[in-house]
Amino acid sequence: MNSRESHALPTHIYEERIARVQKEMKAQNIDALLLSVGHDLPYLTGYHAMPLERLTMLVVPQDGLATLIIPRLEAPRVALHPTVFALAAWNETDNPVALVAKLTKGARTVSVGDQMWARFLVELLAFAPSAHYTRAVDVVGPLRKVKTQSEIEALQRAGAAADRVATQLQSGLIPLVGRTEAQVSADISARLLEEGHDVVNFAIVAAGENAASPHHHPGARIIRHGEIVLCDFGGTMADYCSDITRCVHLGTPSQEIVEAYAVLQEAQAASVASALVGATCESVDEAARRVITEAGFGEYFVHRTGHGIGMEAHEDPYIVAGNTEDLLAGHAFSIEPGIYIPGRFGMRLEDIVVATDQGPLAMNHVSHDLVVLA
Amino acid sequence: MNSRESHALPTHIYEERIARVQKEMKAQNIDALLLSVGHDLPYLTGYHAMPLERLTMLVVPQDGLATLIIPRLEAPRVALHPTVFALAAWNETDNPVALVAKLTKGARTVSVGDQMWARFLVELLAFAPSAHYTRAVDVVGPLRKVKTQSEIEALQRAGAAADRVATQLQSGLIPLVGRTEAQVSADISARLLEEGHDVVNFAIVAAGENAASPHHHPGARIIRHGEIVLCDFGGTMADYCSDITRCVHLGTPSQEIVEAYAVLQEAQAASVASALVGATCESVDEAARRVITEAGFGEYFVHRTGHGIGMEAHEDPYIVAGNTEDLLAGHAFSIEPGIYIPGRFGMRLEDIVVATDQGPLAMNHVSHDLVVLA
Repeated sequence: MNSRESHALPTHIYEERIARVQKEMKAQNIDALLLSVGHDLPYLTGYHAMPLERLTMLVVPQDGLATLIIPRLEAPRVALHPTVFALAAWNETDNPVALVAKLTKGARTVSVGDQMWARFLVELLAFAPSAHYTRAVDVVGPLRKVKTQSEIEALQRAGAAADRVATQLQSGLIPLVGRTEAQVSADISARLLEEGHDVVNFAIVAAGENAASPHHHPGARIIRHGEIVLCDFGGTMADYCSDITRCVHLGTPSQEIVEAYAVLQEAQAASVASALVGATCESVDEAARRVITEAGFGEYFVHRTGHGIGMEAHEDPYIVAGNTEDLLAGHAFSIEPGIYIPGRFGMRLEDIVVATDQGPLAMNHVSHDLVVLA
Repeated sequence: MNSRESHALPTHIYEERIARVQKEMKAQNIDALLLSVGHDLPYLTGYHAMPLERLTMLVVPQDGLATLIIPRLEAPRVALHPTVFALAAWNETDNPVALVAKLTKGARTVSVGDQMWARFLVELLAFAPSAHYTRAVDVVGPLRKVKTQSEIEALQRAGAAADRVATQLQSGLIPLVGRTEAQVSADISARLLEEGHDVVNFAIVAAGENAASPHHHPGARIIRHGEIVLCDFGGTMADYCSDITRCVHLGTPSQEIVEAYAVLQEAQAASVASALVGATCESVDEAARRVITEAGFGEYFVHRTGHGIGMEAHEDPYIVAGNTEDLLAGHAFSIEPGIYIPGRFGMRLEDIVVATDQGPLAMNHVSHDLVVLA
């Protein structure tokens, strides 16, 4: 994995975001916010922490300037915004967690970023065992979840780039028969970069019975004529993510596959249509699930309908039973029902959708059909 | 980032490793071990957790069979070893942390993997606030740190593959002048895969003054004649990592660079020669640092001399001041001193070395000189 550069925004945007976070910290009675690996940090500062044993951590107090604790050898990588954060570089023989403990001394409630390495929390617990620890997603998540117009445009650009690769797939420009899943995955990855992505996040290619495993790892399996091929791919482009799934069939599909796909397509469209501002997340899941269940495939739709998307490939809000939160204008998420018949075949159909006051706005526009390739 | 498949080992190796871990847990009075994202999990089970918000976690009790908690949709990816772990698949509307809490009920001391997402520890703290939490690296690390003969051979194969790319660099087969750092980084990445790596972990390319930033992110900077180019790259091949740094100079280097490089080369060789079984890790750091400091460059060597390597690119033991542990036969680590003159130039020279009873065994054999390219 290569580290990423964040696309710098004007300083005032980071200032405003930190101010909103501190306001939310006050409202929730949180004394300190600790952000490391993950996307809350670049959202607030423009800087991505390297996922390494050397600690990088932004310490945000309820009032006053935040501090970015960083290994000295990585300090030259930081684009400085002195009104957003102070820089505290530590040396190889320092204990950076002691520095965090010092900056958060006396804090009763501490919120930590989801993807921070647990080792740093374990080490911090030794310094501050009686503090109450909560998830930073409760503070930063509500901000990140509601996309601004410029963020929606970034998602559109990433979606359009992914669509161009999906079009190549549906046009037969990506050779399939006789190649391994892994080769096709590498080919799709190269095309995602070619179309403007900075990083490929995943490129699932699953043929025939392998498509029944939703998170199949593309391997040495040769793709053959006469089978379905599921392709689920996405990347990050100028800090925002794409994610799309399309299936193609090599040669005429069986009646069984045609019928199942018709159900899937109807379920996906029904779910998109239900994604209105004010609807609950679980009702959007239910809209897809109802169609699939009524057609008798309910037990084969083994995952939630979708996940939020933005700077991160998976983030709030999750489109899943039990999530009673209402969709707000600016929420962005995938709608990706699937039908998986173990040992035989699988299929999934996915678009990214943004809830808006004018209705659901799709980021993907390529054909939703099961395209048949010769 | 693509998920990885682990290269399956015979079941008895996982059985033996878990047995040794449980013995160590008894000795350290640890009631439960929790492993998620990171390399302890594949070391013990052959399975890599996907770095996602859906929890995958191995729960190892002090006695009895371990349990692998896994999202149901990822269960088809698991190669089963029923004598090593039981599988507990959770559904999309279950709370997997509640399942962890149930399996660890009553545990007083719980060890967690370093790279587990902090959110899961925060959630577990709500279930078990009074348990004592420690780092799993204290339990699994000592096992992983001492490489077996077959692990050393895997490191040799990965090192040889990286060497082949370094040879291409030193032979002038990788075009540099007129290309951006990012293009050369992508080129080196493709060659690492071509030479047999499964994944590229990083490919730093830093030209001229950029080489003074040890973790420079390769960017749009065009590489020009007359400057030094630092290339630090590595990947994972059949589960084991490579990591090498070489510098080349485009055209005749200045006397200043020639002299600094001679110091660097002497420092690196002195450090390798000092890496004997029974020497302390900090003495191996000091062996490099002494040469560089005595030549007057001490303030420009801003990082530790090295890090352990194995299934993970950075793991124990760290070759750093303050680490008084003794090298054992089978310890594998980088030796990579550097000299960084801010705003002007930088240089680093790195090999992977294994401590053996016959002396230090290098995994890299390409020229250590500052190769001059026309």
